[in-house]
Amino acid sequence: MKKWLLPAAIAASFGAQADEGMWQPHQLPALADVLKAKGMEISADNISKLTEFPMNAVISLGGCTASFVSPKGLVVTNHHCAYGSIQYNSTADNNLLANGFLAKSLDEELPAAPGSRIYVTEAITDVTAKVNDGLDKLSGEAFYKGVEAKEKALVAECEQEKGYSCKVYSFHGGLEYYLVKQMEIRDVRLVHNPAASVGKYGGDVDNWMWPRHTGDYSFYRAYVGKDGKPADFSKDNVPFEPKSFLKVSAKGVQDGDFVMVAGYPGRTNRYRSASEVANQFASNYPQSKQLREDIISLIKQTAAAGSDERIKYESTLASLANYAKNFGSMLEFYGKSSMLDDRKAREAELNRWISADAKRQAKYGQTLATLDQLVAQSNQHLDRDLLLYYMGYSYAKDTAERLYRLAHEKAKSDMDREPGYQERDMERFKASLERMERRYAPSVDKAILLELLKRYAALPAEQRLADLDKFFGIDKKFDEKKLVKQLDKMYGATQLGDKDMRLAWMDKSVADFKASKDPFIQLAVATFDGTMAREQEEKRLEGELLKVRPAYMEAIIAYNKELGKPVYADANSSLRVTYGNVKGYSPKDGMFAVPFTRLEGITAKDTGVDPFDAPKKELELINAKQYGDFHVKSLDSVPVNFLSTVDTTGGNSGSPTLNGRAELVGLLFDGVYESIIGDWAYDDNINRSIHVDSRYMLWVMKYLDHADNLLAEMDIVE
Amino acid sequence: MKKWLLPAAIAASFGAQADEGMWQPHQLPALADVLKAKGMEISADNISKLTEFPMNAVISLGGCTASFVSPKGLVVTNHHCAYGSIQYNSTADNNLLANGFLAKSLDEELPAAPGSRIYVTEAITDVTAKVNDGLDKLSGEAFYKGVEAKEKALVAECEQEKGYSCKVYSFHGGLEYYLVKQMEIRDVRLVHNPAASVGKYGGDVDNWMWPRHTGDYSFYRAYVGKDGKPADFSKDNVPFEPKSFLKVSAKGVQDGDFVMVAGYPGRTNRYRSASEVANQFASNYPQSKQLREDIISLIKQTAAAGSDERIKYESTLASLANYAKNFGSMLEFYGKSSMLDDRKAREAELNRWISADAKRQAKYGQTLATLDQLVAQSNQHLDRDLLLYYMGYSYAKDTAERLYRLAHEKAKSDMDREPGYQERDMERFKASLERMERRYAPSVDKAILLELLKRYAALPAEQRLADLDKFFGIDKKFDEKKLVKQLDKMYGATQLGDKDMRLAWMDKSVADFKASKDPFIQLAVATFDGTMAREQEEKRLEGELLKVRPAYMEAIIAYNKELGKPVYADANSSLRVTYGNVKGYSPKDGMFAVPFTRLEGITAKDTGVDPFDAPKKELELINAKQYGDFHVKSLDSVPVNFLSTVDTTGGNSGSPTLNGRAELVGLLFDGVYESIIGDWAYDDNINRSIHVDSRYMLWVMKYLDHADNLLAEMDIVE
Repeated sequence: MKKWLLPAAIAASFGAQADEGMWQPHQLPALADVLKAKGMEISADNISKLTEFPMNAVISLGGCTASFVSPKGLVVTNHHCAYGSIQYNSTADNNLLANGFLAKSLDEELPAAPGSRIYVTEAITDVTAKVNDGLDKLSGEAFYKGVEAKEKALVAECEQEKGYSCKVYSFHGGLEYYLVKQMEIRDVRLVHNPAASVGKYGGDVDNWMWPRHTGDYSFYRAYVGKDGKPADFSKDNVPFEPKSFLKVSAKGVQDGDFVMVAGYPGRTNRYRSASEVANQFASNYPQSKQLREDIISLIKQTAAAGSDERIKYESTLASLANYAKNFGSMLEFYGKSSMLDDRKAREAELNRWISADAKRQAKYGQTLATLDQLVAQSNQHLDRDLLLYYMGYSYAKDTAERLYRLAHEKAKSDMDREPGYQERDMERFKASLERMERRYAPSVDKAILLELLKRYAALPAEQRLADLDKFFGIDKKFDEKKLVKQLDKMYGATQLGDKDMRLAWMDKSVADFKASKDPFIQLAVATFDGTMAREQEEKRLEGELLKVRPAYMEAIIAYNKELGKPVYADANSSLRVTYGNVKGYSPKDGMFAVPFTRLEGITAKDTGVDPFDAPKKELELINAKQYGDFHVKSLDSVPVNFLSTVDTTGGNSGSPTLNGRAELVGLLFDGVYESIIGDWAYDDNINRSIHVDSRYMLWVMKYLDHADNLLAEMDIVE
Repeated sequence: MKKWLLPAAIAASFGAQADEGMWQPHQLPALADVLKAKGMEISADNISKLTEFPMNAVISLGGCTASFVSPKGLVVTNHHCAYGSIQYNSTADNNLLANGFLAKSLDEELPAAPGSRIYVTEAITDVTAKVNDGLDKLSGEAFYKGVEAKEKALVAECEQEKGYSCKVYSFHGGLEYYLVKQMEIRDVRLVHNPAASVGKYGGDVDNWMWPRHTGDYSFYRAYVGKDGKPADFSKDNVPFEPKSFLKVSAKGVQDGDFVMVAGYPGRTNRYRSASEVANQFASNYPQSKQLREDIISLIKQTAAAGSDERIKYESTLASLANYAKNFGSMLEFYGKSSMLDDRKAREAELNRWISADAKRQAKYGQTLATLDQLVAQSNQHLDRDLLLYYMGYSYAKDTAERLYRLAHEKAKSDMDREPGYQERDMERFKASLERMERRYAPSVDKAILLELLKRYAALPAEQRLADLDKFFGIDKKFDEKKLVKQLDKMYGATQLGDKDMRLAWMDKSVADFKASKDPFIQLAVATFDGTMAREQEEKRLEGELLKVRPAYMEAIIAYNKELGKPVYADANSSLRVTYGNVKGYSPKDGMFAVPFTRLEGITAKDTGVDPFDAPKKELELINAKQYGDFHVKSLDSVPVNFLSTVDTTGGNSGSPTLNGRAELVGLLFDGVYESIIGDWAYDDNINRSIHVDSRYMLWVMKYLDHADNLLAEMDIVE
């Protein structure tokens, strides 16, 4: 593998090493030589242009990435990204999760879950100067609100064009701002998904693991009005015709081949300070992991496997388990790593560079100390804040609070409202209230809230909140039985379990809320002022951070510039490109993870019991060595999943994995267990992404699911 | 890897495939071409000669293998083979297990555990005709006794030469007999062992596992009288001067290199019939595994960690755990394998060949059916027989029984005695009574016996034994409390815990035993007749088997001869040679076990807690990359353990691993978890032996233990 040509002494420094880096498209031309040397055949200039092939084929689902793979708006993404829509369309009689789904023609395609969107990025504009304009005298909450107001104004202006969704993304903690303009396609339909026993093979057991054998793909289609513009679902809508789409490779990749991934990575923390690292790994992650595991146990105890309640919580369980495992891995590898020492060393290195020059010292000398001070302040009530955060898993409490907040926000002009409560957000807001119908069971909701309130009650008095204590009668003599009775009564009386009721509350006034007898509405009213006061303090801190973190990042960037090293920004859910090679790794001394798994690995893992219960027909095909068109000689099988060095994280799921000619050779869907901690520090030796191989996708579609219509629709190339 | 040039159709047949095979030395010249092609540089004729280099440097410890590595009788074997001697010499003040041991000069060397022997093979003679002579009319017990008498006579004749130990080994279940004559060196001394945190690094957790990082080596020295003849321990004895010894390679091997192993593999079951396989895996292994695990728990409960009692049972615990894990692996992989079907298929194939010819049909047609019938008979009382076998873990009961048996046997002429009770066995017998001193704690012994008797009492009445029932008052209304009281009384009263008492019983008569008030002697007396009756029945069955199994094996050999394939015999603790290459393997799809582990793997595994508590000094050397003379460029480290395809099993432990020039490149000490079931069927893809690398041994000796005297004594070659 090629390495950056840097003096060895600074190899453990800030900035990208080897295949590290989630690059903004506009940075790619600067990396053209590296990309070419690694095996990219199309030009780096090409990828930097959002409205040209291949970048205009890469789309966002909001939380996941996807890509167009036909001229008729066919979209491929991960099975786990379409999971909500598959679940939404599943019934006891027609379980699409269990059986898979294939629309044989357009009219058989099913509406995706409410709120499903496809975002096609059309422009990214640097708006740093506009955001900062006139704000330099402000600080704290005023500065925070100033930035927010600028962002909202830019978004509002951008969204004047109908059918578009715009957002301002902050890079490097506020050093740069980019306005992203995306066409927002609202009519999204489910086209095809394999059975969960293929698409989710290995389930939570294999999640984040290698060796892996998951057929993590599904197909959507984007629909627009007859005018080609985004429209609400209608029978009259027509498939969207994207400017370009990806060809699908039946040839695939082999060990060492160049690959790149374009997508929407959610969040990384590569530039966090040592004290931020220490706090996160000593407190936040261990507590969050425990809370997630405890809530999972609670849900499983309360909602028996196979029950209607359990079906409603499968998605919640998956999400809780996903990050419990994620945090667990990070804690495990943090313990083994020298991350904190490395971070301290590089801070010391930066400080040496800063203090070596009086001008630099004046400009950056205090940034790190200030940053650490602010971080310490924001972690003062971590135990409590985590409990309050996980109380958000109670739909009853959370929905009441969000509805009451909406009533307050609606009293303001649209531009003055809190993001998430503006008119532009109302459709998503409504969709979330509708979605609750399929995700909420009072018995489970109550069990979660009870448990978290019990823990909350055990906090020292100075951490607790007067309003919440008062509402639930929590004082020195906490009476659990009384709380149980109160919750029984609340869940018995609330009408928020009723969809129409919930939706009706969207249009009510603050006075209506205050007059309500609904116990959860009453809870929301009782705690509102306190919540707002805490939010104000958070915004003040956030405003301070928005001033100091850009200065810190500016120092880092300036230092790297001197070394001739480009700096990519931490992931922020905006479009990035990462490149690397198909490559295995050594999870431990004496063991090597080879870069491809094979069909035979499915059979070897299979127990016949979920999550290792591949379809009988698939096992028969494998046992009969029916590799068909997708036989790979070197493996004497069909490859199922593969590893690469590309630098990805959550949000990248569903991203097209492209070869040097920008053909789709797979879909990124996971990272290996050892590299979850890569969100904090990329390690060339163990950071590996996991992709479902295009050949496996095609093999299942052709021989197992007989998705001939889609195979014919896509442009499949050798 | 080179394969035998066989038609594909019979590749899954009887006989050796690829590197399968534990060959008798005299068979090697027939394999000369294969050996040369694989990389052997010395001639195959050489290895077939027991009294020439290198075979005369390979020695047996009885249960383990070892080799001479200096002209002054220095012997290298595994740490776990010298474990008993290290333990024997350890005291609370001077714990050689914990601290390691190094004799800086001859006079600092310590006597090995009582009964320790070094056997130097001098001749192997085919005595098949002599054994069978005149026995063809006999059957059942008479045939068994006839064979036994012939064997004893041959042994007695051979052992007329003083200082020699002789034994007749049966090959192919009685088809061939070989008389092995070994010089028996009785003065064995402990010279050097690393700390258990090196020599047993990974302990039971890593036992049978890869990746592995165990420095499993120790040194003995053979001493003889001044006349060069074996002698009891004496200060006047001198180091034995072997005819040849192995050079130790500081260069070692690399991936793909030829290696061979000469040693004393204990037992394999490669030619057992399908019904024997089915019985073993359905009943014997699962029950034995459970019993072992239960006895381990009992011992740990009864003897607290760190207590004197626990120290006494460490060796017993290790042995119990070793085979519990062994059986567990076999059961796991049997479940995944097609072994039973393969066995049935090859029986069918053999049957087709037999029935295709009238002469063959007449000769072999009934053998398999008869064999299976006999096997079924011998398994009639398996549940009971296993409980009785594990009651042997009670030293009190077992010792009393063995002593009383001795009194009976002593009344016979030496040649008429049961093997194990002849004059030639008395020294070992005595040593075992002495060894009990350091291995027996009444509290633990009682707990084991109680538990097994409770299980025995729960057996159906028709399985139980009248004499044992009577002695312990076991009937329909089993009263556990009464049994506890009885055992308390027995352990309180017995004098067998006293070494001198035990030894005194060796010379007493049957009448003395019958008159004894010692409760365990009384138990032995009460159950003796019953035990003898069962033994007689066993011998009858064994005699029948000794007639039919040779015929079955003869058919297999004849069939393979037609195919041009040599057939090796199942392991029987006699000297064998196996060859192969350094090679990794795939434990599962998507993962590859690389053939070498590195020093850094020790650090990565280290927790500071036993069994992952490498010496602090070693960790410091590793962290400082102090590889010294043993740095291997391709690994950028010192190799610790390596994998090869050689075909080995228990008893091979301590075997020298030789390169093509017969230099010592390592010591065999284990097999990987996936290949334990290889005792029943060798699989080219997963059968791997684990060796400690000579470079790791030398590195630890030089830089950690400073065993400069031994490094100077050995002939270390590049």
